Amino acid sequence: MKPINVGLLGIGTVGGGTWTVLTRNQEEITRRAGRPIQITAVADRDTARATELTGGKVKVTGDAFEVVRDPNIDIVVELIGGYTIAKELVLEAIANGKHVVTANKALLAVHGQEIFAAAQAKGVMVAFEAAVAGGIPIIKAVREGLTANRIEWVAGIINGTTNYILSEMRDKGLTFADALADAQRLGYAEADPTFDIEGVDAAHKITLLSSIAFGIPVQFERAHIEGITKLTADDIRYAEELGYRIKLLGITKRKADGFELRVHPTLIPAKRLIANVEGVMNAVLVKGDAVGATLYYGRGAGAEPTASAVIADLVDVTRLHTADPEHRVPHLAFRADQLSDTPILPIGEIDSAYYLRLRVLDKPGVLADITRILADQGISIDAMLQKEPSEGEHQANIIILTHVTREKNVDAAIARIEALASTVGSVTRLRLEELIG
Amino acid sequence: MKPINVGLLGIGTVGGGTWTVLTRNQEEITRRAGRPIQITAVADRDTARATELTGGKVKVTGDAFEVVRDPNIDIVVELIGGYTIAKELVLEAIANGKHVVTANKALLAVHGQEIFAAAQAKGVMVAFEAAVAGGIPIIKAVREGLTANRIEWVAGIINGTTNYILSEMRDKGLTFADALADAQRLGYAEADPTFDIEGVDAAHKITLLSSIAFGIPVQFERAHIEGITKLTADDIRYAEELGYRIKLLGITKRKADGFELRVHPTLIPAKRLIANVEGVMNAVLVKGDAVGATLYYGRGAGAEPTASAVIADLVDVTRLHTADPEHRVPHLAFRADQLSDTPILPIGEIDSAYYLRLRVLDKPGVLADITRILADQGISIDAMLQKEPSEGEHQANIIILTHVTREKNVDAAIARIEALASTVGSVTRLRLEELIG
Repeated sequence: MKPINVGLLGIGTVGGGTWTVLTRNQEEITRRAGRPIQITAVADRDTARATELTGGKVKVTGDAFEVVRDPNIDIVVELIGGYTIAKELVLEAIANGKHVVTANKALLAVHGQEIFAAAQAKGVMVAFEAAVAGGIPIIKAVREGLTANRIEWVAGIINGTTNYILSEMRDKGLTFADALADAQRLGYAEADPTFDIEGVDAAHKITLLSSIAFGIPVQFERAHIEGITKLTADDIRYAEELGYRIKLLGITKRKADGFELRVHPTLIPAKRLIANVEGVMNAVLVKGDAVGATLYYGRGAGAEPTASAVIADLVDVTRLHTADPEHRVPHLAFRADQLSDTPILPIGEIDSAYYLRLRVLDKPGVLADITRILADQGISIDAMLQKEPSEGEHQANIIILTHVTREKNVDAAIARIEALASTVGSVTRLRLEELIG
Repeated sequence: MKPINVGLLGIGTVGGGTWTVLTRNQEEITRRAGRPIQITAVADRDTARATELTGGKVKVTGDAFEVVRDPNIDIVVELIGGYTIAKELVLEAIANGKHVVTANKALLAVHGQEIFAAAQAKGVMVAFEAAVAGGIPIIKAVREGLTANRIEWVAGIINGTTNYILSEMRDKGLTFADALADAQRLGYAEADPTFDIEGVDAAHKITLLSSIAFGIPVQFERAHIEGITKLTADDIRYAEELGYRIKLLGITKRKADGFELRVHPTLIPAKRLIANVEGVMNAVLVKGDAVGATLYYGRGAGAEPTASAVIADLVDVTRLHTADPEHRVPHLAFRADQLSDTPILPIGEIDSAYYLRLRVLDKPGVLADITRILADQGISIDAMLQKEPSEGEHQANIIILTHVTREKNVDAAIARIEALASTVGSVTRLRLEELIG
């Protein structure tokens, strides 16, 4: 059968991996897909390197628009990243009737509605397995493997950089700054790590998972995002003492009146499988009403793991390339005309358990004031830990774990606690999830 | 759009779950599939119960052949189990041009080649996500999610009954017989538990995984199968002391000259995520050359988890119902004309590390004899544990962990060790896998 011609936009880490794996496993991939899948054009700013990598076997250009306009290209693989030029290229590829495979979570989380609508109108596919959790086939699992279920929630370790930093902070008692420096030295964090450590990358990914889990439009702008930069080694240690680990989770939940969509450091029970996902590994826990909790674990980044996802999409698209669009899986798991307009809830309206750390003057009545305030706000206490002051100090650390409550109640309680004369500085607040399957 | 009509053969545990979930989640499933999926006929020996369960809303019959011959039925769901009548029904459904969804691992592991060939010839689909690991979408993950990869091996906890028994033996120090009795009392083991405890059920499942991982025909008759009935609480404890857990694993591996296909109790490092899969839960670890190791975890049995997989297949089949067969995923992941005839290796030709437990007379020179025999057979020792004899006893337990070696070498060494005058009884041999991702 006629080969499928792929145009590759960007042959950096993931693009290079895609070239390598497609070449190395060509025979097996062809046995599966039914026809050869071949990269016939590559666009990269560094044309010399692109030519070297591809051994002079394919057309190499510095102008990506040449590739998306090339009538011989069936599928465009977009691995440039970012919102601007990548968006123009993807939209032009779609307009030219080409299918698109992309790893660009930022682009889809922010401009997904526009891109999917354009693809729908043109009758082409936009596949994005590589955009979430690298090589783990999590998009396919949620979008196709769990279609029987009303999904209740998804919680994932979907950023390897921050999971590496948190693992190092816990294992070695490092500060955030030192662990970040280690990660940068080892190539696990970029020179400008902002998107990772501030939770933005994880928020892009959980936004996409939220859409395919619940059948709602992509709404990155509604996500609540907190990174790990303010996390202290103390909090990690106190959590440990209480039987919890702290992970940066992307969380999305179905509630009666809307959906929760949030990224933040989260205490989870140390005995959960997902609490033991260490280093740069990723894992996503999905709770469906029929299946219960299922977990998907693997490498969330890197050249070949991400290429694995890109190529899986290429095989899927190759199979359905000439099929009637109705035979294809909808971009966001639910038919485009069947997306729900149930809103994403503001962060004050979420329900969670909480970890509160307070520094207080070590004198009588302090605890009574605090517990009174919590009771007033309808917050019940699950566990408390008082760390004795060091000798000569007249302050103590108090750690409180609450039962599940509405976040705005906690906001109000924290404001009142911070206003107490006996409270020193501000209250550290972390969220806690039991993740019961 | 016109609804898809499903005929359900067997409305027991899984059939009942399928009815319940399809009914409860009808709206979401329709939003995904693009058209209603409805059960319009049910066959069950107990027609009264079937009528009651379905509320008198569908045709109920005691004759399953009526359903597979019903011209209004688009998809037949076979949940009867077993090899005889189920095979006839599936083949007749196929002959009548109906797609088939089945949870019947035994049928497909033994008669898969005949059934898939018939389906291929007739241009219909036979979907079997529910046949392996219940609600975990592992068939989809391997068959579609990892298509970029040359799969190197698959190792899975794919029988909940035995995993429950092993968890209980370890946690509570129970004997196999007592743990089995507990499992039966709780409904985790059947009255006749043979298929589970002897490893046959796990072998059916790993046989199917082997085919879709490597693109080879279904060859259950070549699988090497050992159950957990001979496992002692001592072995579990000694393994623990050495840093390992014992799990019943289905294992299939790619080797230079063939494939390994085996089920047996296996020592795995306690720190691996999969070693911490407890109770009736299932988990499958898949190693691909590009993606590395990925893990899939969830409920491997039960009404609604299994129904989740059945219905996911129904949605897939509904989407591709009228599509050209070339747009569909091949039954065994690789195109039917592209299956490989590379053989399954006999058990003597596999490579593994080993746990050996010997009872020896407590006198000088014994260890020298044993280590000499191992060295003669080219087997190197990774760790050794000598358990001091109880007071008054003149025997000792010796536990040896070997490095990876060819199994036939271990067979030869065991025969020679058992022939020593100082060896008491037979040598206990378990296999050990590091499962490095």
